[in-house]
Order: sequence, then structure tokens, then C-alpha cells
Amino acid sequence: MKIAVYPGSFDPVTNGHIDVLERALALFDRVIVTVARNSSKTPLFSTDERVELLRLAVEHLPGAEVDTFSGLIVDYARSKNAVALVRGLRAVSDFEYEFQMALMNRNLAGDIATVFLMPHERFTYLNSSIVRELARHHTDVSDFVPPVVLTALQEKFGPLQPRGI
Amino acid sequence: MKIAVYPGSFDPVTNGHIDVLERALALFDRVIVTVARNSSKTPLFSTDERVELLRLAVEHLPGAEVDTFSGLIVDYARSKNAVALVRGLRAVSDFEYEFQMALMNRNLAGDIATVFLMPHERFTYLNSSIVRELARHHTDVSDFVPPVVLTALQEKFGPLQPRGI
Amino acid sequence: MKIAVYPGSFDPVTNGHIDVLERALALFDRVIVTVARNSSKTPLFSTDERVELLRLAVEHLPGAEVDTFSGLIVDYARSKNAVALVRGLRAVSDFEYEFQMALMNRNLAGDIATVFLMPHERFTYLNSSIVRELARHHTDVSDFVPPVVLTALQEKFGPLQPRGI
Amino acid sequence: MKIAVYPGSFDPVTNGHIDVLERALALFDRVIVTVARNSSKTPLFSTDERVELLRLAVEHLPGAEVDTFSGLIVDYARSKNAVALVRGLRAVSDFEYEFQMALMNRNLAGDIATVFLMPHERFTYLNSSIVRELARHHTDVSDFVPPVVLTALQEKFGPLQPRGI
Amino acid sequence: MKIAVYPGSFDPVTNGHIDVLERALALFDRVIVTVARNSSKTPLFSTDERVELLRLAVEHLPGAEVDTFSGLIVDYARSKNAVALVRGLRAVSDFEYEFQMALMNRNLAGDIATVFLMPHERFTYLNSSIVRELARHHTDVSDFVPPVVLTALQEKFGPLQPRGI
Amino acid sequence: MKIAVYPGSFDPVTNGHIDVLERALALFDRVIVTVARNSSKTPLFSTDERVELLRLAVEHLPGAEVDTFSGLIVDYARSKNAVALVRGLRAVSDFEYEFQMALMNRNLAGDIATVFLMPHERFTYLNSSIVRELARHHTDVSDFVPPVVLTALQEKFGPLQPRGI
Repeated sequence: MKIAVYPGSFDPVTNGHIDVLERALALFDRVIVTVARNSSKTPLFSTDERVELLRLAVEHLPGAEVDTFSGLIVDYARSKNAVALVRGLRAVSDFEYEFQMALMNRNLAGDIATVFLMPHERFTYLNSSIVRELARHHTDVSDFVPPVVLTALQEKFGPLQPRGI
Repeated sequence: MKIAVYPGSFDPVTNGHIDVLERALALFDRVIVTVARNSSKTPLFSTDERVELLRLAVEHLPGAEVDTFSGLIVDYARSKNAVALVRGLRAVSDFEYEFQMALMNRNLAGDIATVFLMPHERFTYLNSSIVRELARHHTDVSDFVPPVVLTALQEKFGPLQPRGI
Repeated sequence: MKIAVYPGSFDPVTNGHIDVLERALALFDRVIVTVARNSSKTPLFSTDERVELLRLAVEHLPGAEVDTFSGLIVDYARSKNAVALVRGLRAVSDFEYEFQMALMNRNLAGDIATVFLMPHERFTYLNSSIVRELARHHTDVSDFVPPVVLTALQEKFGPLQPRGI
Repeated sequence: MKIAVYPGSFDPVTNGHIDVLERALALFDRVIVTVARNSSKTPLFSTDERVELLRLAVEHLPGAEVDTFSGLIVDYARSKNAVALVRGLRAVSDFEYEFQMALMNRNLAGDIATVFLMPHERFTYLNSSIVRELARHHTDVSDFVPPVVLTALQEKFGPLQPRGI
Repeated sequence: MKIAVYPGSFDPVTNGHIDVLERALALFDRVIVTVARNSSKTPLFSTDERVELLRLAVEHLPGAEVDTFSGLIVDYARSKNAVALVRGLRAVSDFEYEFQMALMNRNLAGDIATVFLMPHERFTYLNSSIVRELARHHTDVSDFVPPVVLTALQEKFGPLQPRGI
Repeated sequence: MKIAVYPGSFDPVTNGHIDVLERALALFDRVIVTVARNSSKTPLFSTDERVELLRLAVEHLPGAEVDTFSGLIVDYARSKNAVALVRGLRAVSDFEYEFQMALMNRNLAGDIATVFLMPHERFTYLNSSIVRELARHHTDVSDFVPPVVLTALQEKFGPLQPRGI
């Protein structure tokens, strides 16, 4: 059984993340989506909230699991017997940071490959930070996040309005 | 009458901004230069100071106006009946951030185009942050900013010295 | 009246080109789509065929015209009293070539701006060369080109098959 | 059983290709390395020679097979029941071309993912074209290609000399 | 005698820095490695510690000196009669920032060239920040830093463990 | 005495090349500008013409010499006892090709560094191919090339016209 780990901040999970996860599940038998505990930034959602939102957002996907990690991701991946780290690669700006991480992780754990998957082009310019910014301005983000995340954002910011053209 | 909005921090306005503005004025009947109020960073100049410097720097340009905005730029643009957002595009490092913003803005307001204009190549590597850094070290920036900005920088930092060579 | 020129090879015109043209028409009173006659490559469609396909593809768009040019595009633009050249900017790989052209054109004709517009993200990775390649392999391209182009491709290559999944 | 296809020109196969293949074999049960027959360029080695060199270069790797294809790679992949296309991603210059291909392939066959793997950094700047160029100048390339390729290059170009320093 | 200045934060010096320095020493008679005093970030090592580590790390390299600077680097370089600033250029992400700095420095001091040197590809994805991150997780970094830096990191973080594989 | 080699096609030499050469001459005692004989493309000027134009264009620069080479540039550089190869680095599109060459050259000759210098920003988007294209359309290029090259282009293409604006 081939296991992969898909690490990230997921603050909050977006449809772009789900898209990458679905692709990973077509390649691996199990994919563990794992939330970084030691993120240095001030998150909008706590680690527990992010995990809970992820659990609800992926529960319809067989083979997907949700977890958290701290420390080096390669140590976590090895403890799970994973053969691969999964990363979404959307645009050139992602590229060099991801390569740096991947090469450093290979130096640390040569037996765990980093696998880059491309989200659908409609998610090319989507990330969690834009979702937070839009919600903060009471703007509807239902095209960009799973329904449970939409509800959670409305609990934090109040109703999000759809826009006319 | 075609109206465009040119948003930014303008902390302070540089000759690169003026160059983009002049090009926009050749395309549109009115261009509203608008200062973001809700910028998260600690500015060198207050919003009021930035607006005042912009007003003085653009007063010789027919069709140019100065304003401020908060909230989403597309909401502001629509309230002004603008058909376009103007953005300067100088280098690859600008590119992806600007694209992300432009695509997100299109999702929010499909009727307002983002128009990218290229400043003169002598402004390719100029931005407000470098101007602030040079002035902080008492270095002449008269090639990079309008005269009113030069004066304002000297009021903050003391005399700026021209350099040899 | 503000006139813009949208130059290209258009071999053949794609939905990405139409998308850029529609955005340009919201900004300018007239947009002249103009086919480069002196293109060095071996085209799939002759200049006359490309013009004819463009004419049919844009006839529903008020303000759009189709023409051809040879020589420097800035000379052509000036002869048309255009204030702007329109270019689609899709991805970083477009960026530097377009900038080089834009800056050179500004050296030649400082009064004609290059205006960059972004096609919809679903066209980010679409270009005429991919359309030709797909049609050559009898693959349906109806999502990527106007109906008249689909017909023209089928006349050249025979029926194009829709695909499963 | 998960099958992946690794397409390319392989003119000739380099140690960078082998490195990507080895990583792919850790993820998939079978990886079919497949040589593009319809490559438009003038190759150094014929398709048959490239296949033969690949066969010898991968015969020690369980799960690796060698084949050829013509037409669209997604049609070939589906005929092999592959779940993935494997591509090496070395540097930013690879990135956009590969993304364009991957997105177009997804449009054609949404069930076949493109999986990007990173070769070791010592292969970041290696490609088949540099190997051909060095061999043409009688320069030793034994660090860059499998031994069978070295022999084949020497048959074409004569002895390749090691260098001082 | 040709003198060059190699400025940076060096928090801490890595083998990538040493590699660039060695190349610079082949080109210039003296190379002054100079630590920026006015760095705005919270460093891991104090300026004095960084200078001391650099001194020990370069003492075997004839022509290398260590110093500190504050203010504009071009003022410092001129006070040292340097003809060049040396910068390592590893990847595209370095490129535009470095170019911006180099062009601004040329505006300030046209007689001092910025010379870009490329570290060995095994250092392409190495920087001080990754070294700090690894050490913080008690991970061996002996491949990435000089022995004196390894010792200093162990004094801060405790023993760094080698990894399996 | 430190010698550097500055290789290229120089078809024809532009003011951007002269700018890079002048910077190199501030760093090295002698700089040999050397024209690649084995260039695969169809040149506008023959090797002999390119050498002659270079000779005339650099004769006012003490320490500059002109030569030709064939084969690997590192072999040529070593035969000249050069310590460095000089390359102009203008934009991101140059970057990866140049890095690939530099790293390959280091593999072949570890004792010869590649030194990247930045031309003035007014030459960022200038290259020989644009100069040829402009001259072919009878456009004045006197801002972009040395006077002897202007004369040579006029002999090939007839008078080059200055432009309005």
C-alpha cells in the first residue's frame, strides 16, 4: 500500500487544495492531509478548527485522512511510512520555494519523493490568503471553498454577499 | 467618458508612478489615482500626506484626480463608474502578484478590466521602498521623485546629498 | 474617438484572442485586429484565410475590425491614428518577449502605448499552436476556437472527435 | 497495479532521466518509458537506437519498460491503462511549457494526472542537447550519461577526452 | 590591486557563501566579506558572532578579510577603494531583487560594478534561513556549513543528529 | 595580469555589448571579445565582418582585443590563460540559459569562473536580433549601435530613417 502525505497550513482549506487531494488519491492508496502545527504566522483558524474543517471537507473522499504535525515534515512522513510528499504547484512564484523545500527534504530523507501536482487552472490564482481577505470584506467565496468553510467564515465575519457583475 | 482607477500605496509617489499615470491619461478621459487607506504596513507618510503629495505632483496633468479608498478596489471602482483598473507592470516579480489580483478582481467584477501599462525602462527597478531607503541614508533621490516629494523627504530626514561620479 | 490596434498571427484565431478583444472593446471605441503579413513561419492558414476566419469570428462585436499589416507595427498603428497596441498577457513566458517588443515600440513611437490585458484563466495555457497540434491529431477543439475555425480545421484535417472522460 | 508513462525524446537518455525514472519507480508499480516517434527535429540517434539505448540503460530497474508512441500522449497513456504521466521538472524554464502540456492533457483526458518529479540538483542544468554538444567536441560526458550511451556517442564521434582540473 | 566587497547578512555563513568567496578570490586581489550591521530582522547570531564565525571560516583563504558596514553599501565600497560588489546568484528568485539593488547601486556609484557569481549547483537551494530551521529541529547540517558554524549551532540548539538514508 | 574572455555572436555588436565590455575592463587587465565561428544560424554579417566591426567599435578601449573561436569556449579560454568568462545578464529570460552554460562550463573547467555583469537598464531589452529587424525596416538604430555598425547596416539595407515623436 502506497501512502502519501500532503502537508500545508490549510487556513482554511480551499477548493484548490481539494482538487490536488483528489488527484493524489488517484495515485496513492492513502493520502494523509496534515496541518502544520508550528506555523509562525497568526492564523485565522486555530489548528483544531483547521483540522475539523478539513475532516468535514474530505469525508466523502475514500483514502483521505487528516492529521497534524510539528517538526520536520520528512520525519513525520517517515513515521507514517509514506513514500511521497504531495505539493500543489500552481505558478512560477510557487516553483522556487517548493524546489528549495523539496531538495532540502531529499537531503534529509532521500527515500521520500516530493510529487508535484497541478490544480485545475481555475485555481491557479487561488490561495487561502485571498479567501481570508475576501471574507473579511464580506464577499461571497462560495466558488472557492467547500460549504463547511463558507459557513465557518460567515461565523467569523457575518454574512458574505454575492456580487452582481 | 471612460474613467479608470489607478490604486496603490504611493508612499511616496515616484516618477515611475507619474510615468504610468501619464500613459493612462492618453487612453482614458479621467484617471483617479487612489490611495489605499487600509494598508497594513507602517507607512512613512500618513494617508493625508500621501494624498497631498499626489495632488501636488499631478496637478499639471489634465484628467488626473486624487482620492482614497478602503475595502475592495472593485467596489470602489464601480462606485466611480470606472471601466478599468490601471496597474504598472515593471518586472517578472510584479507579474504573478498582479495577475492573482487581476483574476480575483475579475471574479468579483467581470465588467472592470485590469489594464497593465509598462513604465519607462529607466523606472524598471524603482519603487517607493527604495526611495525611502535612500532618503533614510541622506542620499539624493531627485531623479526618482517629483520635486514636492523631494522636499517632503528632506523635511523628514534632513538634507539629501548628491553623489560624486 | 480612441482607436486601438490588436496585432498577431491568428493562425487560427482562438477563444483566447476573442476574450482579449472583447475586453479591449470595453476600453476603446474601435479595435482593429490586424494580421501580420510578414510572419516568417509556415502558417497553417494563409493570410487571406486567417483574415476571413477573423472577420466571421468577430462580426458580432461592434467596434471590431479586421485588417492586415506588414512592416513595423508602430508605423501601421500611427497610420490608423491608434493610441494603443493591445496585447494579451497570459503567463510569465509571454512576459519578457512582450516587454521587449513594447519597449522597442515605445522607442520608435512614444505616443502609442502598449496595453496588456489578461485573458480569462481558462485560456492561460491556450495558443494557436496547440490548437493546430490537436486538430492534426483529429481531436475536438470546440472548447478552444470559434465555430467557424472548427469548421475550417475540419476541412483541413477531417472530422475532429470528441473524447471520453 | 498503478502504471505510469514517462514520455520524452531521449536523444540520448541521460543520468537525469534515469534519476527521474528511479523516483517514479518508487511511486508506481510499472513505469513505461516511451520515446516520441513523431518528434519534428533531426535526432542524433534514430528512434530504434534511442529505444535500444534506453533498454540497456534501464534493464537493471525492476518495473521499468521501454516503448515508443506517436500521436497524442494521452491516447497512448490510456491504451496502457496508465494513471499518470511522469515529467521531470528541473528549472523555471521547464515550468511553463510543462504546465501548458499538462493542462491541455487534462482537458483531453481528465483521468490521467501529470506528476512532476524533481531530478537531483546535480542534474538541474543537464539535458540531452548539452550532451550531444559536448560529445560533438570530443569531450568526456561519462558523468552525465549511462555507460551504454557513452559507448554509442564514441561510436558516432570518436574518443571523448577527459579534461584537466 | 583590485579590491572587491562581498556584503551580506551571513546569519550564519554557509558553504554556499564560502564557495562564492573562493571564486571571487580567483578574480580579485582582495575580497572584503562585510556583514550588514543595520539588518532589520532579528538575527540568530549577533553581528559580533557572525563576524567571528566568518573570520574563522575564511582564515585559510589568502586575500579574504572580514568587516562590518552600516549605511549604503556603495559608500562603504568606495571607502575601501573597491572596484566591485560581489553577489552570489543562485536562482531566478534571487535575480530580480539583486538586479534592483545593482541598478540602484549603479545610480549611486557608477564606478563600482556588481559582479554576479554562481555558487556550485549543490548550493543552489541552500541559504542561511534553511540552515537555521534545520538546526532548530536538531538536524545535522554538517554538509551545509563550515565546522565552526556547526559547533556554534550546537551550542545554541544542542546536538544535531545525523539522519538515516 | 588577469585576463577575461567575452564570447558571443555579435551579429552585430550593440551598445549593450559595449556597455558590458566597459564594465569588464574596469575589473580585468585584458578582455578578449571573441566571436563564435561555429554559430549554427544564418548570420547577417559574416564572421570576418563581425570581427571587423567589433575591432572598430572597441579600438578606443585600452585592454580590449577582438578574436574568434570555434569549439568549446572553455578550451579557448584556457588557451588564453583567462580566469573568467564574461556574460551580460539582462533579464530573467537570459538567466537560465546562461546558468546552464555556466554550470556546464564549470564542469569542464573548474578554474574558469563565469562572471555575470549587468548592462545599463536602457539596454535591458536590446539585442542584436531587434537591431537587425529594425534596420530591415529602414528604421534608425543610431541609439542602439556604434556608428560603424550604423554605417554597415545602411550599406546592407539602404538609408535608415529617424522617426517622429
